[in-house]
Amino acid sequence: MQNEKEKIAVIGAGSWGTALALVLADNEHQVHLWSRNSEHAHEINSKHMNEKYLPGICLPNNIHASTSLEEVLKNIETVIIAVPTKAIRDMMKQIVALQENALTFVHVSKGIEPDSLLRISEMIEQEVPEKLLTDVVVLSGPSHAEEVGLRHPTTVTVSSKNMDHARKVQDLFMNQNFRVYTNPDMIGVEIGGALKNIIALAAGISDGLGYGDNAKAALITRGLAEISRLGTKMGANPLTFSGLAGIGDLIVTCTSVHSRNWKAGNLLGKGHKLEEVLSNMGMVVEGVRTTKAAYQLAEKYQSKMPITEALYGMLFNGVDSKEAVDRLMGRLKTHEMEDLVDILSEQLEQQ
Amino acid sequence: MQNEKEKIAVIGAGSWGTALALVLADNEHQVHLWSRNSEHAHEINSKHMNEKYLPGICLPNNIHASTSLEEVLKNIETVIIAVPTKAIRDMMKQIVALQENALTFVHVSKGIEPDSLLRISEMIEQEVPEKLLTDVVVLSGPSHAEEVGLRHPTTVTVSSKNMDHARKVQDLFMNQNFRVYTNPDMIGVEIGGALKNIIALAAGISDGLGYGDNAKAALITRGLAEISRLGTKMGANPLTFSGLAGIGDLIVTCTSVHSRNWKAGNLLGKGHKLEEVLSNMGMVVEGVRTTKAAYQLAEKYQSKMPITEALYGMLFNGVDSKEAVDRLMGRLKTHEMEDLVDILSEQLEQQ
Repeated sequence: MQNEKEKIAVIGAGSWGTALALVLADNEHQVHLWSRNSEHAHEINSKHMNEKYLPGICLPNNIHASTSLEEVLKNIETVIIAVPTKAIRDMMKQIVALQENALTFVHVSKGIEPDSLLRISEMIEQEVPEKLLTDVVVLSGPSHAEEVGLRHPTTVTVSSKNMDHARKVQDLFMNQNFRVYTNPDMIGVEIGGALKNIIALAAGISDGLGYGDNAKAALITRGLAEISRLGTKMGANPLTFSGLAGIGDLIVTCTSVHSRNWKAGNLLGKGHKLEEVLSNMGMVVEGVRTTKAAYQLAEKYQSKMPITEALYGMLFNGVDSKEAVDRLMGRLKTHEMEDLVDILSEQLEQQ
Repeated sequence: MQNEKEKIAVIGAGSWGTALALVLADNEHQVHLWSRNSEHAHEINSKHMNEKYLPGICLPNNIHASTSLEEVLKNIETVIIAVPTKAIRDMMKQIVALQENALTFVHVSKGIEPDSLLRISEMIEQEVPEKLLTDVVVLSGPSHAEEVGLRHPTTVTVSSKNMDHARKVQDLFMNQNFRVYTNPDMIGVEIGGALKNIIALAAGISDGLGYGDNAKAALITRGLAEISRLGTKMGANPLTFSGLAGIGDLIVTCTSVHSRNWKAGNLLGKGHKLEEVLSNMGMVVEGVRTTKAAYQLAEKYQSKMPITEALYGMLFNGVDSKEAVDRLMGRLKTHEMEDLVDILSEQLEQQ
């Protein structure tokens, strides 16, 4: 089932990059993991640990960490890009300057660029000249890095414009614990992954305010509706939002103790200030930037996104979180199907 | 917004019956709560508490508990039926024998009758003569009783054949904390509520086996697909499964510490025997009976239900739970959309 063992580069030794390096190493590939920090790279090579980002996990010997991008990129066909959305463009520029041949770029980040409103695959296409780009593949789904590190059963979806490349990436990663499925709807897979972080922030706020699981389930349900509505207007297949990269990822991000977007929302709900939360987290909270991008997308596509709008007000305009959540709970339509029928009609218009 | 205050009967003083009595009492109705146990009724009337089923909650004074079904049913137009699915038929027979006039029966239980394969509203219609039946209304959604008791924000859906009656029930229950929405798809609302308990058992087993949130999110996603597939074949509107009575209820039941179906599954996953689990729970675990009914429904409607089938094997045929869950995780199709496209085609055939 697996193709030949090859050298693969993973760019970014955060929790997700390291966990994916571990999956590839379990599949006996030669994994070269790039870190910007030499002490960090040294720890990975000497102790086979990444204590800061994937604590308690022993990394396989066939993961080799390095701070030399040149070394990492030598003799490869596939590069995994596991850096925060904000760092994507700069990283692409660095890679393009060193690239020897055309590469398949597998991006595993979740976000939308504010202002340009581009998906990550589109940002990569802008930065990499055509002759250096085999294809962009997205890998997304309900997958906390900590659990992948523990080799707990995990399912993800891969997508690309040319599905042959997605299938190749499927083969590289697929094993007993890490199940990889293909879905040709790249827009839906990227939008589902990006926008779920907004709902996770909102779910964290609801929990931080002391509201319970009933309120959170209502928020997630409405959140799925608003992601689905916008995504369909952007050209996604509505069915994708019922799958792993849609509701699957949304559930895990909104209900798991591992989710950093949920954690950030939780602190906001408890009354901490945004700046304080972000500086205390020590990891990137993609949902904050994505909220801005989604707010702009809602305007561009004239799509109703009440949760996104409420969150935007809280994060950027100082609206009180309790007031915003209470208003959200109260403003649902009386007739549940009105909203759902809206979505369906919009979906049918697209077909 | 609320209609005139009236006497309303709530049959069953378990956690859900008591929580709903509290909502109606908050809306200033005269609530008569029937309990089969005189000590229990006495505790509710004298201490305004239901320590066994809704601990720590102080009940309003306008809830009057009684063991006399006759007294409870006098001068009412609406009766809330909050007894386990297994007790529905017997309770209906008792009510019919005492009824003075036609009533609206609001059922709030979640299940399907094994062998007859009837939904609860259909069982009620079989038991109550037409002249004594105004209508049957179902109330369902993501709503743990404990949180309703704490007046945390909660959303539910009501449905009935004649939506005037659903709207009347909406008015009786609606308040600031308890938001009630209407949906004319009665089949979908009943099926969503019943079948989610199967997925909650499976999610509990996965957690009990020590698998993580990634695995559980995959199970819930696939669970929604199989509920949706069967429900649509039974005549439900597929959109209902994307709403509160579908994915909303599924999320809350699979991820909340309050869920008794999840708890039962969790114990099964830890290696306890079914009989032991059921006798230790002290509350009815609807999912066990529903698994049998859903297994029969899958055969009748020729609908693929891999999670239900796996659970049926574990509960009734002694299949090892680890083996069954591992097989489930492995057997997903390689191409995620194949399954989703199956569902869509089936849905389109229905329209």
